[in-house]
Amino acid sequence: MTDEAEIGQPLAPRRASRRIWLGKVAVGGGAPISVQSMATADTRDRERCEDQLRQLQAAGADILRVAVPDMDAARNLGALQRAITLPLVADIHFDWRLALTAISQGVQGIRLNPGNIGGAAKVREVAKAAKDRGVPIRVGVNAGSLEKRLLAKHGGRATPEAMVESAKDEIRLLEDEDFTDIKVSLKASDVSTAVRAYRLAARAFDYPLHLGITEAGTLQGGSVKSAAGLGILLAEGIGDTIRVSLAADPIEEVRVGLSLLRALGLRRGGLTFVACPTCGRCEADMIPVAERVEKRLSSLRGEVHVAVMGCEVNGPGEGKAADVGIAYGHNGVGLLFKKGEIVARLPAAELEARLVEEAEKLAK
Amino acid sequence: MTDEAEIGQPLAPRRASRRIWLGKVAVGGGAPISVQSMATADTRDRERCEDQLRQLQAAGADILRVAVPDMDAARNLGALQRAITLPLVADIHFDWRLALTAISQGVQGIRLNPGNIGGAAKVREVAKAAKDRGVPIRVGVNAGSLEKRLLAKHGGRATPEAMVESAKDEIRLLEDEDFTDIKVSLKASDVSTAVRAYRLAARAFDYPLHLGITEAGTLQGGSVKSAAGLGILLAEGIGDTIRVSLAADPIEEVRVGLSLLRALGLRRGGLTFVACPTCGRCEADMIPVAERVEKRLSSLRGEVHVAVMGCEVNGPGEGKAADVGIAYGHNGVGLLFKKGEIVARLPAAELEARLVEEAEKLAK
Repeated sequence: MTDEAEIGQPLAPRRASRRIWLGKVAVGGGAPISVQSMATADTRDRERCEDQLRQLQAAGADILRVAVPDMDAARNLGALQRAITLPLVADIHFDWRLALTAISQGVQGIRLNPGNIGGAAKVREVAKAAKDRGVPIRVGVNAGSLEKRLLAKHGGRATPEAMVESAKDEIRLLEDEDFTDIKVSLKASDVSTAVRAYRLAARAFDYPLHLGITEAGTLQGGSVKSAAGLGILLAEGIGDTIRVSLAADPIEEVRVGLSLLRALGLRRGGLTFVACPTCGRCEADMIPVAERVEKRLSSLRGEVHVAVMGCEVNGPGEGKAADVGIAYGHNGVGLLFKKGEIVARLPAAELEARLVEEAEKLAK
Repeated sequence: MTDEAEIGQPLAPRRASRRIWLGKVAVGGGAPISVQSMATADTRDRERCEDQLRQLQAAGADILRVAVPDMDAARNLGALQRAITLPLVADIHFDWRLALTAISQGVQGIRLNPGNIGGAAKVREVAKAAKDRGVPIRVGVNAGSLEKRLLAKHGGRATPEAMVESAKDEIRLLEDEDFTDIKVSLKASDVSTAVRAYRLAARAFDYPLHLGITEAGTLQGGSVKSAAGLGILLAEGIGDTIRVSLAADPIEEVRVGLSLLRALGLRRGGLTFVACPTCGRCEADMIPVAERVEKRLSSLRGEVHVAVMGCEVNGPGEGKAADVGIAYGHNGVGLLFKKGEIVARLPAAELEARLVEEAEKLAK
């Protein structure tokens, strides 16, 4: 249970973290929580990858990442960064040369664990190059790939404590090179492990935290895990940037991430959409209407609150907070309402089009 | 931020609440958190409604509800209750006679606000009938339909404080009739309002709490809101029974509810499914495989943890916690692994079928 002061606020005060910059996007230190995603296109296929990055930018992502499996991929990074106005993060494992190439190509962030690139001399060179170009490094601890030494020390299991120890070790390697332009993730596919690891990390250091439940699963199952895990942490004031990781089109990762931030009042603008679950009182086939309306209005930039309700009895009342809404009634008619006031009684078949029209007008 | 003792546990200790019984299902007092849903079929259409209730029971719901708009609907309740082994809850507004009929028909729960059925004499009669049959009553406060008097008192807005005051008023009407077999919901479509209302209620009385974000929206948007809002509350130890309210087939409400409880470690058994989000390293069309595997295994009763991973490099390691998993590799081959150990190298085309087979074996 939270203490008295926190009850009045849905979210605890945000954890104080340092601020870093990926290009023009601030992370930490009270900056708005940013939404990240990662391209699934092969980084070596420049055109496809550029296309996908542009789509993800259009969907509302704040920071984008690509895998850098080899030098052919690394050499595309400059073009990929120039294809978007958002910061591009290069995801690198094991090979320090890929990191140096990525930095010289002009990416605005690196994800790399200094512990696995081959020793202090290489870490020094990468840290120096990153520092010269103002490129932050994300240390990405993953419960599934913890060092054997740490697993052994923690009873063979990737415990939250082992994960935080791994993060501290990686951070130290960078700090030893006088590099502190760092953010940290501690991902696990299990919500409970991830939540505890981030809580411990939130107290262990003040670098900004990149939240994620890794390998969360499919669109639906993964969204539930991510929304629960990230929701719990964000409600505790923990987290500076998030990625919802899904086995789905990454556009969905962006949508779910933005929905989550909006649901928690951490992001303004765009569509707030409510729809009743329908019950025995509803005489219309309302669910497809709700799906279509949400889809058609989902790209609105202006702030608008829209409701689709299944009955006239509760509709306008329960949709009172909505700027505009519809409620299906009996015998093929229904209501259009604004802020709970009925403004028109219309044939049910016209409700959907009228609602979309009114919402678009309001969002302008 | 949570205190030191809570960091080690993903969830705070559960709030102490009274225990009530809906038929054989306990709610509150440390009972397992139950998952509810509501039929969308017209309660007057007995056959269709029976079918839907049976489907919802098969999907894993613990408690089911139907709307009772009129006496024709009320007279079907006995048959509907007998069509399932789960408790059936009758959802009633305004009309005390519907409540009396529902109780005499043998439903195992009522959802009714005593404040709107027409005065103390009627409340007395309903409370007496419910008490005689051991039928609990859920007081259901909804931010969208608060009494005008309370709205006026709270600045015209359905604040969390106004909602809790409404709940207390309703509870008092039942307590005045010596009726305490009560659970309470305080739903709002806005996550922040709902979270604050439930937190306040958790301290204001000790009746079990039925959690829900009302009119949450479509399958995807609504799942995110519900998982975040209910996840935050459950992590604080608040909540005895949940309903994920979606404008979608109610089967989805049950699935999302169960996923949420599993994600938080509040429900055991069945499938734990992880899938990586795929990245530039993945050469297979993995997302449809993940979707199909999850669907095919979702009805398993035994506990099994399954992973679908996009690359051989991280696959087995990151899927270490999985009882069984597959990882796609290069050139049309891939791996089958168990608990992180590679047990077979197979043509990629055979991986999916083999995984399902192994998982089904393990779940037995």
